[in-house]
Amino acid sequence: MIRILPVEGLPEVRAGDDLAELIAARAELENGDVLVVAQKAVSKAEGRTVRLAEVEPSDEARWLAGDEDPRRLEVILSESRRIVRTRPPLVIAQTRHGFVCASAGVDSSNAPEPETVVLLPEDPDTSAARIRQRLRELAGVEVGVIVSDSFGRPWRQGTTDVAIGLAGIRPLLDLKGVRDPAGYELHATVIAVADELAGAAELVLGKTSGIPVALIRGYDASGEGSARELVMPEERDLFR
Amino acid sequence: MIRILPVEGLPEVRAGDDLAELIAARAELENGDVLVVAQKAVSKAEGRTVRLAEVEPSDEARWLAGDEDPRRLEVILSESRRIVRTRPPLVIAQTRHGFVCASAGVDSSNAPEPETVVLLPEDPDTSAARIRQRLRELAGVEVGVIVSDSFGRPWRQGTTDVAIGLAGIRPLLDLKGVRDPAGYELHATVIAVADELAGAAELVLGKTSGIPVALIRGYDASGEGSARELVMPEERDLFR
Repeated sequence: MIRILPVEGLPEVRAGDDLAELIAARAELENGDVLVVAQKAVSKAEGRTVRLAEVEPSDEARWLAGDEDPRRLEVILSESRRIVRTRPPLVIAQTRHGFVCASAGVDSSNAPEPETVVLLPEDPDTSAARIRQRLRELAGVEVGVIVSDSFGRPWRQGTTDVAIGLAGIRPLLDLKGVRDPAGYELHATVIAVADELAGAAELVLGKTSGIPVALIRGYDASGEGSARELVMPEERDLFR
Repeated sequence: MIRILPVEGLPEVRAGDDLAELIAARAELENGDVLVVAQKAVSKAEGRTVRLAEVEPSDEARWLAGDEDPRRLEVILSESRRIVRTRPPLVIAQTRHGFVCASAGVDSSNAPEPETVVLLPEDPDTSAARIRQRLRELAGVEVGVIVSDSFGRPWRQGTTDVAIGLAGIRPLLDLKGVRDPAGYELHATVIAVADELAGAAELVLGKTSGIPVALIRGYDASGEGSARELVMPEERDLFR
């Protein structure tokens, strides 16, 4: 059995906060637990915010903005390695980490103050590793940590939460060479376990109730890896 | 707290089996539970299989097959409304239901016998509704039912399980007009809850251990809807 528990009672996260300390004070952690932390909490703790008043929009940003704030589009462009699709003011971009998502992960909801946008963490794997290490120090436990964000998907409505950073977690489960009960070899069956864990955690998070951390117990996801393994390599990507 | 439990001990499913009866005999169901049933079990119970010996491949199927069995490609073509991308022998297609996925959902692993492929259910919402109605009769419970399948995603490695059919479930949670704790209105925040539930269930299913059903308890997903609401409408689709 797998259990998914919200970590309740966290205060509004501010730049410089020690997220692991806030979590350890509110959750009874056990070895093997998986903690899923919403990207926005991580980004805010790391001070990854931009005041729009300090942004000068380029012509490209003005064009992409349509009727919306061109300064926000300028921030999106600065976070992008490549623009994948646009329909102003909607921009699907590949971030410097390699993730393809709306607005290169730049978001205004749940920002610490008005006229401010929140960026993805500089290196979400490192963010996850830092939380993991601090929880080891503070609570003496070995847990896995996933930093999650809500991504849209081509062809399907609605977002699901996926892993953009992780530590102590095996992101993919590769069943290649494994046989089904009838002895038939499974082809190319690689399961994005870290994304399924992030999506499961979203069910207890709640964007409006201000719960940015969930704990998953009873699933052995332990291993080493990077959320960048979840990015489709260019040569296998049919949808560039 | 959400709990995810595998429904263990189901026999290999055969055409004509009453899946609800097999489930009711092995799970202590409660009102409000969500049952996630793997598509392959549903398809097998419904006899949605094709013997390759009875398939005559077209020229198009031969071309798409590359080095693989052209009869399998012929079945994929017959299940497709539209071919989205090909890189022989890989075909991404839109099924008649509207879902975009590899091989139009046609699969050879976990098939009931060799030289046989399994198709998606004719109407997975109806499949889910039938199981739901039978569980009401057999166990006197009101549960939600999701029929799930493993889909790949553009830009990301690995599959996650998503909902292709459902009954008694609200597939999307629309937070439009809802405000975050700072009073900022959330834009276009629609969460694909049914897909997150399907992905969470996959964590206890296991393609190789032959467990095709999971029970999710503690999440209120009740409502009415269709898995087709999870398909992006053509006019909003940037990735046709």
